[in-house]
Amino acid sequence: MKVNIERIHSRLEEIYQCGRKEDGTFTRMAYSPEDVKGRETFMNYFRKLGIEPRVDEAGNIHARLEGEDPSLPAILTGSHLDTVPDGGKYDGVVGCVSGLEAVETLVENGKKLRHPLEVIVFTDEEGFRFGSGLLGSGAICGQDLDIRETDLDLYGNERGEVIKSYGITVADAPKARIRPEDVHCFIELHVEQGASLYKSKTPIGVVSSIAGVSRYEITITGEANHAGSTIMADRKDALVAASRFIAQVPEIVKANGNDYTVATVGTIKVQPNSVNVVPGSCTFNLEIRDQDAAVIECIEKNAKAYLEQVCKEMGEEYTFTQISYHEPAPMSEWVKAAIETEVQKMGVDYKVVPSGAFHDSLIMTSVFPTGMIFVPSVDGISHSRYEFTEDADIEQGAQLLLQTILEVDNMDDHVK
Amino acid sequence: MKVNIERIHSRLEEIYQCGRKEDGTFTRMAYSPEDVKGRETFMNYFRKLGIEPRVDEAGNIHARLEGEDPSLPAILTGSHLDTVPDGGKYDGVVGCVSGLEAVETLVENGKKLRHPLEVIVFTDEEGFRFGSGLLGSGAICGQDLDIRETDLDLYGNERGEVIKSYGITVADAPKARIRPEDVHCFIELHVEQGASLYKSKTPIGVVSSIAGVSRYEITITGEANHAGSTIMADRKDALVAASRFIAQVPEIVKANGNDYTVATVGTIKVQPNSVNVVPGSCTFNLEIRDQDAAVIECIEKNAKAYLEQVCKEMGEEYTFTQISYHEPAPMSEWVKAAIETEVQKMGVDYKVVPSGAFHDSLIMTSVFPTGMIFVPSVDGISHSRYEFTEDADIEQGAQLLLQTILEVDNMDDHVK
Repeated sequence: MKVNIERIHSRLEEIYQCGRKEDGTFTRMAYSPEDVKGRETFMNYFRKLGIEPRVDEAGNIHARLEGEDPSLPAILTGSHLDTVPDGGKYDGVVGCVSGLEAVETLVENGKKLRHPLEVIVFTDEEGFRFGSGLLGSGAICGQDLDIRETDLDLYGNERGEVIKSYGITVADAPKARIRPEDVHCFIELHVEQGASLYKSKTPIGVVSSIAGVSRYEITITGEANHAGSTIMADRKDALVAASRFIAQVPEIVKANGNDYTVATVGTIKVQPNSVNVVPGSCTFNLEIRDQDAAVIECIEKNAKAYLEQVCKEMGEEYTFTQISYHEPAPMSEWVKAAIETEVQKMGVDYKVVPSGAFHDSLIMTSVFPTGMIFVPSVDGISHSRYEFTEDADIEQGAQLLLQTILEVDNMDDHVK
Repeated sequence: MKVNIERIHSRLEEIYQCGRKEDGTFTRMAYSPEDVKGRETFMNYFRKLGIEPRVDEAGNIHARLEGEDPSLPAILTGSHLDTVPDGGKYDGVVGCVSGLEAVETLVENGKKLRHPLEVIVFTDEEGFRFGSGLLGSGAICGQDLDIRETDLDLYGNERGEVIKSYGITVADAPKARIRPEDVHCFIELHVEQGASLYKSKTPIGVVSSIAGVSRYEITITGEANHAGSTIMADRKDALVAASRFIAQVPEIVKANGNDYTVATVGTIKVQPNSVNVVPGSCTFNLEIRDQDAAVIECIEKNAKAYLEQVCKEMGEEYTFTQISYHEPAPMSEWVKAAIETEVQKMGVDYKVVPSGAFHDSLIMTSVFPTGMIFVPSVDGISHSRYEFTEDADIEQGAQLLLQTILEVDNMDDHVK
């Protein structure tokens, strides 16, 4: 049984039209008219197969192919259709379309699974609009959603109004929860969004875990002073102190982490931010990611010690405050093993990799047995109009997804 | 003949009331009602002496004490009364009030100079309101003022409207020009605004020159990428490159400059400035100041070479663009010598220092023989409510100004 790459390709193109702009950019923001159109386009493919998708109370789409045994829990697959602004054509969509392709290939071949198979499109994965994402998977997993009707989006619109385009309400969203006993497992196919597969010319990644993320806000306080009349020896320049620290961050990672450990300073501001004033304070964020909480802790400890040393040398003060923390989220061992079994049968080269980025699988793995398949992103580019994944790679990924679904369908509960 | 420090002190206090706020801050922005009130207060002191000040076409106040020989050019002294927001009580005002004190002491003692003595209050020295200062001295020196009726200030008001509070117009401002042959010399007393005198416990600074200032805009371009899925080895982080450069700037100054050479990065921004995105570009200003153009050039060359090296190592690009340049401005040798002669006669400790900050003297020295006297700023603090200079230091500065005026009054043109 083989997936049809021409069909996948044409559907990626059709969905891409829902959000493509004349200027070459592409945006399908959650809850926007483009997003609603993309979802409708996606649901119509199922309708043609005689499957009427259900939209749950959190706006997630569920397209369900019933199995032979209605008493068995469902195999879930899928991803998201929403994008960041000026985003890419593949992020999320490849997983949704490949889930559809699995259903379609099974139907075409008259193959009936034992378990129900459900393709899910998760609501607001990206989260840039309201500042926090993974909403749909959070609701399915019964997480505290921490949303209100009055939350404002980037444009000042209230959440209560915005989500009407999905026909949902804040009050009802928690009802989208799925009980663990109703799920056999969840498998997500996604583009890697990094260059690890692409650079090593490996067509498939089997995800071991989604990296934990710890974020900090750091403020260094020196002394704002006239840049003309304050000699170098008398300065307490907060930006020079910050720069010494930021320049050292990659060295701290190198000395204490592994190939996949990352630490990033992505934001910075100085006060008073004037060309002729020695910066009196400098505030920036530090983010550390790794699959191992102990590695994150070790990087944090070393970073803090270095900052302490710099500020001591320069006679400056600092604050170093953790502002958020997500634990590393390992994938299910048995689902991961099923994926590896199938990729080996296909005779395709693969490697086990961590995911540095967040995905709905980060949430799903906390409640359901979850596995994740990566296909390469050319040059590692993502969240960009230049995002690209080769058809041949998408084909192998979709084929592996289908075969893994067939494999786990044969696995009984006790195998877990 | 001795200046009267009680009188100076009470006048500093009275003028301070024009701009002091209940919350402890103090602002006398150019052209504001507080500034107009301060100027009126200052002019009234002269009116009580029978001197009616003249406001020229650029808004500069000229209070003229006629001399014995009307054919002789004038001795000019003075400074400015406008301040930065949340500014200090001494910056500018000390020079104006000490000029007034010189006139008053001469009148009280029945001492008539050979030359006319003119106390000037320069218009808009600070320049933060419209983004460029030294307006009044620029007009007096016949500089191209580069101002328009339609220039907008920080609050969106047009210059044409704003300057009506001085009763002046943009069109007429150039008429404030004074011919070189009408000026014997200009002497400005000012607080140092740096810590060089304060730290060395030296009560008087004789300014050798006003440092030249070269400003640059630097942009480093790397590659914006997902901070989770882009491993450290694959990054082109523009902020890490910028940080390596900024951290090195003090070292470059140490290796190539002197005790007074300064270089500052006072502004910085990154794109896209998001906690989970590796910065794709980083833009910041560099400012280099020194009394010697060759030193500025050498620091520039070394900074650029280091930036080149960092960007090469990191596979990033940069631009390094000079956005403005003011040449170092040496003070007049004979006026400086006159100041030194008098400070030595007073038996007061002094040192010859450069000025890192701009002053009206920077402009005046390009056309008129100019000298400048500094008194210490406690802790080097300026442009702040914490700005402070001891009465004893102001007294010595004002006394030195008076004696220097008497000294240059005895010097003939050929002495220059």
